[in-house]
Amino acid sequence: MIYFDNSATTRPYKEVIDSFVKVSSEYFGNPSSLHGLGVQAEKLLTQARAQMANLLAVKPTEIYFTSGGTESNNLAIKGTALVHKNKGRHLILSSVEHPSVRGAMEQLKSADFEITYLTVDSYGRVSVEDVKASIRKDTILVSVMHVNNEVGTIQPIKEIGKLLKQYPTILFHVDGVQAIGKVPLNLVKNNVDLCSVSAHKFHGLKGTGALFIKEGVRLDPLLSGGNQEWQVRSGTENVAGTVAMAKALRMTMGKSESGLKKMERVKSVLRTELEKMDGLTINTPLEHSAPHILNFSIKGIKSEVLIHALEQKGIFLSTTSACSSKKQLPSQTLLAMGVPDELADSAFRISLSYDNTEEEARTVAGAIEDAARQLRKVMKLDEL
Amino acid sequence: MIYFDNSATTRPYKEVIDSFVKVSSEYFGNPSSLHGLGVQAEKLLTQARAQMANLLAVKPTEIYFTSGGTESNNLAIKGTALVHKNKGRHLILSSVEHPSVRGAMEQLKSADFEITYLTVDSYGRVSVEDVKASIRKDTILVSVMHVNNEVGTIQPIKEIGKLLKQYPTILFHVDGVQAIGKVPLNLVKNNVDLCSVSAHKFHGLKGTGALFIKEGVRLDPLLSGGNQEWQVRSGTENVAGTVAMAKALRMTMGKSESGLKKMERVKSVLRTELEKMDGLTINTPLEHSAPHILNFSIKGIKSEVLIHALEQKGIFLSTTSACSSKKQLPSQTLLAMGVPDELADSAFRISLSYDNTEEEARTVAGAIEDAARQLRKVMKLDEL
Ligand SMILES: Cc1ncc(COP(=O)(O)O)c(C=O)c1O
Ligand SMILES: Cc1ncc(COP(=O)(O)O)c(C=O)c1O
Repeated sequence: MIYFDNSATTRPYKEVIDSFVKVSSEYFGNPSSLHGLGVQAEKLLTQARAQMANLLAVKPTEIYFTSGGTESNNLAIKGTALVHKNKGRHLILSSVEHPSVRGAMEQLKSADFEITYLTVDSYGRVSVEDVKASIRKDTILVSVMHVNNEVGTIQPIKEIGKLLKQYPTILFHVDGVQAIGKVPLNLVKNNVDLCSVSAHKFHGLKGTGALFIKEGVRLDPLLSGGNQEWQVRSGTENVAGTVAMAKALRMTMGKSESGLKKMERVKSVLRTELEKMDGLTINTPLEHSAPHILNFSIKGIKSEVLIHALEQKGIFLSTTSACSSKKQLPSQTLLAMGVPDELADSAFRISLSYDNTEEEARTVAGAIEDAARQLRKVMKLDEL
Repeated sequence: MIYFDNSATTRPYKEVIDSFVKVSSEYFGNPSSLHGLGVQAEKLLTQARAQMANLLAVKPTEIYFTSGGTESNNLAIKGTALVHKNKGRHLILSSVEHPSVRGAMEQLKSADFEITYLTVDSYGRVSVEDVKASIRKDTILVSVMHVNNEVGTIQPIKEIGKLLKQYPTILFHVDGVQAIGKVPLNLVKNNVDLCSVSAHKFHGLKGTGALFIKEGVRLDPLLSGGNQEWQVRSGTENVAGTVAMAKALRMTMGKSESGLKKMERVKSVLRTELEKMDGLTINTPLEHSAPHILNFSIKGIKSEVLIHALEQKGIFLSTTSACSSKKQLPSQTLLAMGVPDELADSAFRISLSYDNTEEEARTVAGAIEDAARQLRKVMKLDEL
């Protein structure tokens, strides 16, 4: 099996699952319990928080555990909206955000919020000038993702952070889900107020995530209750999942040191090989793009058909983001970049982990070429 | 170790953890992915949903997976409020609800919702007449828990369900977190529209739960995004956790058949033994109470001190609900029942699982008596 769909989800590291099992079976106490089993569980939680904070170069008190990237994005956006609704109801986002950012904001429209979508250039990037031009007196939040999940474009977070420093009442949220562990970002230096993290994108477990909330930034909770996570996120803590997430992040960041170069090479092999193919267009820009994502279109090939043909050979990649693939909608990101409909309709995404190799890249490139050739033949036969 | 704090959280069954491991390592695909790994994951999810539905005697399309009881309660309440806010903004709840019900409703006050708290009698029960008297033209939701988490009182869900049948525009939410697997309830027959479930209360894993949403009932999502769970709860699904939850529920309900009688006996041994003790008052009513919870107060004994003394002997029980214990507040439920402050301040909760035995009950009762005697001695010495 060659698994090239790591932006949809990753295979949890064995060590991560082992941690989960150990904590679940041996330290199953409720962290809120007064007795020793509770105290143990709380210690593990505190330790995981300190590890995550350390790896993300922020304070432990700035890490809030959630059930995943979707919850973190919703909490960041709706939590800000609820707190600041009397100060202003204008929100800014890029037109290539994940549905959980876009959806959270769209939902707020019914509470009289207004939204400005930033357009992107043909590389999928927003411009800082556009951010600036969109700012109004009643703007309370700007949300721009670090790495786009469909094409891998890296947004100018540093520049936006610098700009927003001049607007201290506007919060800056960054969806870091696809970036964490692959594209470094100093959250504090770059003036990021809120950053979303999802463990299953870096070999952690589904259903675990975190939100970085800069010291001093206030959010209203989405989940009220027992007042866990400093009252911002109630609910009995998923201690084992959280410990596993910290382990996954530590392992991923550890691998990134030597792994990033290798990943870049694997991607470059893919790009070089695929570019040779007739009718194939690479949609991922050469510059400002993450090392693990490569998006391309093959003219005239129905993406789903090719996906299934490759699967026969044990190769797994995807058409677009996992959550849009079922709906079979063309990629929002590609359309926003101005990619023509027919190419957006036949788009593919390869997404790598640190464990993928150059050899796999060559195999996959070859398999794509073969499969496309075969499919074209069949289609031509159809036309007879 | 004698673990008598199962209402705070339970020890996950070994088989439950095994399921989790198998799914996490072998079926790690994203259910939204088009390829085989996604299809496999989705199948597992569908299967878990069917199992849960079957065990709860509802339809698979009525089971929505969440991150736990707190999320389920918040989703039920806020989701209803968001959909029906133009129809009415009045909510009714009992004064002994879990903080996640109470907190969700209190938070809605800032959106101009009004709340009516139902008082409870000295057994901790609401009356159907009170529910009826509280209903207004603008009432959209009644929320009454099935089993109270602090004293174990069973609320008159059937009667309330029957009453609310006459008010088809009012939704009926039942927090079933403490009841599921221990106190049967036919959701459909009893006119329940929404029912919250949390896996870690029945030997499942923390961070997993479900909300029963009766066919035809609409909720606005708390988490927008990729439109998983029929658009009511977005976010990449915790497939392994969900499969584990279904397994835990199946095992728990399986054990309940012979286990319930045994559990009643264990509780009755505890009650009989403890009642003999000087200065000890049982707060849990004899009738209309769940088989697994026994709450009592020991006059003049600081709960925390006794908890720690028992812990030395490997016995784990709690002062009050886990989430209030850290704040060291007296139990809300006991105060609502009219228990005097000094007794509410020295309250203890024993909560059983199907694996606890009569022998353990005798040991614990003896240990409580010994510890209390010793503490009284020390205190008298202090008074010299
Ligand atoms: C950029 C981005 N943001 C948010 C999410 C949502 O995270 P999760 O799957 O943990 O809900 C994803 C992945 O699905 C993503 O790629
Ligand atoms: C009655 C009741 N409702 C809701 C909850 C919250 O569930 P969870 O711990 O899964 O957030 C609990 C337990 O904490 C409970 O006892």
